[in-house]
Amino acid sequence: MHDLIIVGGGPAGVAAGIYAARKKIKTLLVTDHFGGQSLISADVQNWIGIKSISGYDLGKMMEEHLKAQEGIEIAEGDLVTKISPTLPAEASAKAGSPIGPISPISPIGFRVETKNGKALETKTILMVAGSRRRKLSVPGEDKFIGKGVVYCSTCDAPLFQDKVTAVIGGGNAGFEAVIDLLPYAKKIYLLERSERLKGDPLTQEKIKSNPKVEVILNAKTTEIFGAPPAGGFVTGLKYMDLRSRYIELKVDGVFVEIGELPNSDVVKDLVQLNKAGEIIVDHKTQKTSQEGIWAAGDVCDVLYKQNNISMGDAVKAVLNIYEYLNKSLPAQAGN
Amino acid sequence: MHDLIIVGGGPAGVAAGIYAARKKIKTLLVTDHFGGQSLISADVQNWIGIKSISGYDLGKMMEEHLKAQEGIEIAEGDLVTKISPTLPAEASAKAGSPIGPISPISPIGFRVETKNGKALETKTILMVAGSRRRKLSVPGEDKFIGKGVVYCSTCDAPLFQDKVTAVIGGGNAGFEAVIDLLPYAKKIYLLERSERLKGDPLTQEKIKSNPKVEVILNAKTTEIFGAPPAGGFVTGLKYMDLRSRYIELKVDGVFVEIGELPNSDVVKDLVQLNKAGEIIVDHKTQKTSQEGIWAAGDVCDVLYKQNNISMGDAVKAVLNIYEYLNKSLPAQAGN
Repeated sequence: MHDLIIVGGGPAGVAAGIYAARKKIKTLLVTDHFGGQSLISADVQNWIGIKSISGYDLGKMMEEHLKAQEGIEIAEGDLVTKISPTLPAEASAKAGSPIGPISPISPIGFRVETKNGKALETKTILMVAGSRRRKLSVPGEDKFIGKGVVYCSTCDAPLFQDKVTAVIGGGNAGFEAVIDLLPYAKKIYLLERSERLKGDPLTQEKIKSNPKVEVILNAKTTEIFGAPPAGGFVTGLKYMDLRSRYIELKVDGVFVEIGELPNSDVVKDLVQLNKAGEIIVDHKTQKTSQEGIWAAGDVCDVLYKQNNISMGDAVKAVLNIYEYLNKSLPAQAGN
Repeated sequence: MHDLIIVGGGPAGVAAGIYAARKKIKTLLVTDHFGGQSLISADVQNWIGIKSISGYDLGKMMEEHLKAQEGIEIAEGDLVTKISPTLPAEASAKAGSPIGPISPISPIGFRVETKNGKALETKTILMVAGSRRRKLSVPGEDKFIGKGVVYCSTCDAPLFQDKVTAVIGGGNAGFEAVIDLLPYAKKIYLLERSERLKGDPLTQEKIKSNPKVEVILNAKTTEIFGAPPAGGFVTGLKYMDLRSRYIELKVDGVFVEIGELPNSDVVKDLVQLNKAGEIIVDHKTQKTSQEGIWAAGDVCDVLYKQNNISMGDAVKAVLNIYEYLNKSLPAQAGN
């Protein structure tokens, strides 16, 4: 029986693992890989304390810090595939229907199964499985990730000083990317597939009235291309208009803002999710609607998806789990 | 007119400054010094990504990262002494009486005065002024800070493996320090000035029943002493009992847990504080009860006081301020 299973190995998972180990909580961390979504970043400039580091090196730093902790068990290259509560008999009928911010069901623990065939019991779970960006899935997109193709405007807008950029997606996320680029880029195309922008009207006005911004509706991005040599950067994109004509735009950067998919599937029948599929948490403790399950980082309904935020909230979660485990000890001894 | 004034230069202030600069928010950061309370730590082991670093070096790293940002204005060696709203005339009668989580008063900004004679106007304020630990104020306490005298058990308990320790303070903070020490120390004295422990009864039971723990009531700590050479560590403490006898305990570490004082004085008439003097915030956005003022880190009612948490929440605050400034721009243009 573990005290805690941490599901995920991004910044939130690593921060949680380090704090859990230092508190001597009997912990297992399950992750496919370390580093989270920043792994693909060429240059992270907002990890507090470090002026500039590649996403790869940052991932390595985190992994080494975690692995230097004594007593933490790590299942690397593995994935949690199923979580089921091990309920007291009389409560099991209510399972799967939490009705408020704190569920009336108090399972004594959970059973966790993994892709590599592990089956484990644990008292608590911390979901820090992150999210994945929805991709355009067009030729060139993957090839130029970190070389002009960008999925985080807060992180990377400053790299596009005096550059020509395109933002793909006319919802609020696209608008935010445009606003992040305004002080930096000299030209911003905003491409939207449908016949109208979807983000909030006030921001829409502001964006449209800025001479740097050119909105292109009914534009379906079909290709991103760049400099031919290996290591080359984005030089442009192609889109199809309403009359099925292919049009080329010369751009130095493509900001893809067409949605985010939280990795919350494995708990979707256990905890309350919002419409976006994010786990709803109490933002003071990181508790979910299900007693015994906490969540932090991009998988939950935090307003902003940032490494520093994910780490801080994961630390909150572990300290709250630690209190919970300490308080529930006498009761468990009586079982 | 500034867009944002950041009050404080600890981890929260630095994180906020870096994000604000990258968002090109017109920002001034006012701080007495950089580094926050960790500055006095001999060995920080829980700054995510770094296995071990002195508090001093960590402070320097943060300061250098901040100062590498273009466009941020810094008033170092200065302190904010007064903040007053510059209210629209008809609303000023209501000033100082926020009645709910969001005040009905919408000042267009604030006037900020500093010790060094600055007087500035700003649209928004982020309070990240931290807190200070209440000290015993006995001989030896200051001398052995970082050499056996400890103010953060979550941070430093792991350094006391197989050591004899004393925790000063029989409230919940003292109990938490004892629990943090249980897996590490071989002996823990818990000293309380009054005739009984004050922390919650359940934890009290747990602590008292552990053979490692010895509770000493009516014990007034009067001195901390240590090895005579410079660089020496704590070797013991002296306390006075009910009959005014001085008693010596041989200990390797003294955990001082007698209270914390948030640096919230400068906004105490503007925002809602809790009984502990902490600024009450909405934990999703870090907004205070006063529109235009945000808070993060140890100065606010966050459950756990940790560098990583302070940074993450400060980033949330700046991203929320950024949204606020962008949304309020058209209205202000109309003034």
